Amino acid sequence: MTRRVVIVGGGFGGMATARALARADVTVTVVDRRNHHLFQPLLYQVATAGLSPADIAEPIRSLLSDQRNTQVLLGEVERVAATDRQVHLTTGEKLDYDWLVLAAGARHGYFGHPEWEQHAPGLKTLGDALEIRRRILTAFEEAEWNPEARERLLTFVVVGAGATGVELAGAIADIARRAVADDFRSIDTRKARVVLVEGGPAVLNAFSAPLPDKAAEQLAELGVEVRLGARVTGVDEDGVELGEERISAATVLWAAGVDASPLARPLGETDRAGRLHVEADLSVPGHREIFVIGDAAHVEQDGKPVPGVAPAAQQMGAVVANAIRADLAGSPRPTFRYTDKGSMATIGRNRAIAEVGSFTTSGRLAWLMWLFIHLLTLVSLRNKILVFTKWFWAWISFDRSSRLLYESRSRRLPGAD
Amino acid sequence: MTRRVVIVGGGFGGMATARALARADVTVTVVDRRNHHLFQPLLYQVATAGLSPADIAEPIRSLLSDQRNTQVLLGEVERVAATDRQVHLTTGEKLDYDWLVLAAGARHGYFGHPEWEQHAPGLKTLGDALEIRRRILTAFEEAEWNPEARERLLTFVVVGAGATGVELAGAIADIARRAVADDFRSIDTRKARVVLVEGGPAVLNAFSAPLPDKAAEQLAELGVEVRLGARVTGVDEDGVELGEERISAATVLWAAGVDASPLARPLGETDRAGRLHVEADLSVPGHREIFVIGDAAHVEQDGKPVPGVAPAAQQMGAVVANAIRADLAGSPRPTFRYTDKGSMATIGRNRAIAEVGSFTTSGRLAWLMWLFIHLLTLVSLRNKILVFTKWFWAWISFDRSSRLLYESRSRRLPGAD
Repeated sequence: MTRRVVIVGGGFGGMATARALARADVTVTVVDRRNHHLFQPLLYQVATAGLSPADIAEPIRSLLSDQRNTQVLLGEVERVAATDRQVHLTTGEKLDYDWLVLAAGARHGYFGHPEWEQHAPGLKTLGDALEIRRRILTAFEEAEWNPEARERLLTFVVVGAGATGVELAGAIADIARRAVADDFRSIDTRKARVVLVEGGPAVLNAFSAPLPDKAAEQLAELGVEVRLGARVTGVDEDGVELGEERISAATVLWAAGVDASPLARPLGETDRAGRLHVEADLSVPGHREIFVIGDAAHVEQDGKPVPGVAPAAQQMGAVVANAIRADLAGSPRPTFRYTDKGSMATIGRNRAIAEVGSFTTSGRLAWLMWLFIHLLTLVSLRNKILVFTKWFWAWISFDRSSRLLYESRSRRLPGAD
Repeated sequence: MTRRVVIVGGGFGGMATARALARADVTVTVVDRRNHHLFQPLLYQVATAGLSPADIAEPIRSLLSDQRNTQVLLGEVERVAATDRQVHLTTGEKLDYDWLVLAAGARHGYFGHPEWEQHAPGLKTLGDALEIRRRILTAFEEAEWNPEARERLLTFVVVGAGATGVELAGAIADIARRAVADDFRSIDTRKARVVLVEGGPAVLNAFSAPLPDKAAEQLAELGVEVRLGARVTGVDEDGVELGEERISAATVLWAAGVDASPLARPLGETDRAGRLHVEADLSVPGHREIFVIGDAAHVEQDGKPVPGVAPAAQQMGAVVANAIRADLAGSPRPTFRYTDKGSMATIGRNRAIAEVGSFTTSGRLAWLMWLFIHLLTLVSLRNKILVFTKWFWAWISFDRSSRLLYESRSRRLPGAD
């Protein structure tokens, strides 16, 4: 009988594994609780009304439809029964596996304060992005008609100055200064306050000098207030607390911390973020048949952890597929080594930083590199065309065209329909 | 003091009124409980995963941003206090008006069975469209993994064979036969059953002969089962009841009946659908300062009611704006007369019917006319470009590219992220 590979998660890691097993003599089942693969690097643009969900997501099913050994299952994994070699779904179904690949990602972490999440949503899914979009747009709408709460409504706090936090803060500043500036009568959206709070000593800390400083300069040009070395001690519906100081803000967004999917945790030792320590071949210690990859895996290389970025997850997926092929052939498994092809972060219109090997750049050139590389790596040709069109349009018009508030399901209320 | 016009509803009627008052010596407030104007004729394409919400919606605020006498309020109207000349919002706020334009539209009607709605959603808002999309896509996903319920899951019932019902049924058939046909392993989506239920004697009854027959032929080519003269006597989570017969179906969609916004009802006499009978100048009998337009108004012309279509609502809006200008000038108000510029309905790829005066056509020519006219009438140039690109892509690839299931807000559940 053909042997079975179960892959949990259709993100960058899971998809890379599945793709690389297309012609292997195994049956592959990809399980995800969502039906789409998401191009997460552009998710902040959905949250800030620049793109639509469909522009950056593709049904996992269509991406794998030409791969006849592969089946896709929309479902949620409850736990891994490692001794039975089974995955239990929340529906009660069980999937047998010969190899299991856990690629279920991570969410943002709230430093032991899960109660902060309702007031400060993180950005990992399309649902998150639409919720953040709703909060940002609603804040402007309410500010127009509520003079008493205006200051609080026009204050936006982003916690965490990694790539996502910087991108969110920069995009909100762009919206306030340009996209919606002419739409309101009672408020001047240009005066909106955008505060970026970071516990560490610099923004975009993972980049080499002088890029963090360049990024800070560009954020300042956009009018973003950066607070470095600031520890968040409280979040509630009124705003955030930074020790003694309180910032009253209607919109608080969370882009700090990492909290890995809990699926792999019972299988071994994890780091503080819940990521499992894996072997050099990415398998779980004591379970050669289970692999953990992507944001849920803790892999050390040259004394520091491999970063939780898309290329790392994709490289891990390829290595795991090769390990499975090696097992089938009875040959030794490859070991994983991360190749850093460079990194970049965008800050706003014409503003970004980029680093490739020892080459660093910032400003317009970095921004164009960022645009070009993200367009190239988008999954489908159709989405490349659509995103290019929308970006070009936004660039000439300063507009953000997905500024929609839609409720989940309209109820039969009296009033304007 | 400048006199005040309050417009409730930012649909075709409300927007036409607001636009036509751009340079009038009044202040205009447009109140809508959603922040966007929706191009409803293409809403079924959002529901069937062909387009994204942002492709057919524009923030009301941006559409009116260059109109300095106009303010937009995101809010819900609770009731009209006609004696005080005030509109009460659900927030407790009150808006004074000198003229009031009620353009709050209609929903589908359930013939006195509101409890059917949860099992058979109608299609009027973006929220409705995303809910319908979710149901359709989820049915295929579950059918792949649930052999016992497969037949029920692969049966889709659409109630009502007006334009929306025909468009939905045709699009679902297109999806099943083409777009997702290669994506599944255990089911043959081409065998999905699509049933279009109509109480009257023909589909698209409002069109002249021979178009209803042509439409029925084209539906049959797509594999849609049409049931004419069939009265729905029950809807529950298992399916629909047509008298003695029961059709077991996981997805039931409602495109029948009309149920006008209740806002205008207390002001006078309504028809069975809750539409208010208005004067020749579209004002409410006994309230010259209140107008009701669009789907919420009952206007007779040449012995039959003016249809609830976008051009009629737009023409009414223009007439009401002229009535207000006439009042300002102290001259007599114009009376409304509907000009029918023709109508069309699409059935599926290369299939449609169209009627302009005494000219009728069906099939590919009608379909091309339909595409062309809808592209031309979309509100913004940007959306014209995007929709054209998506349609062209869909036409060459047979794909439906917005096949996304996204939950409202992800919760921190164990499992694949």
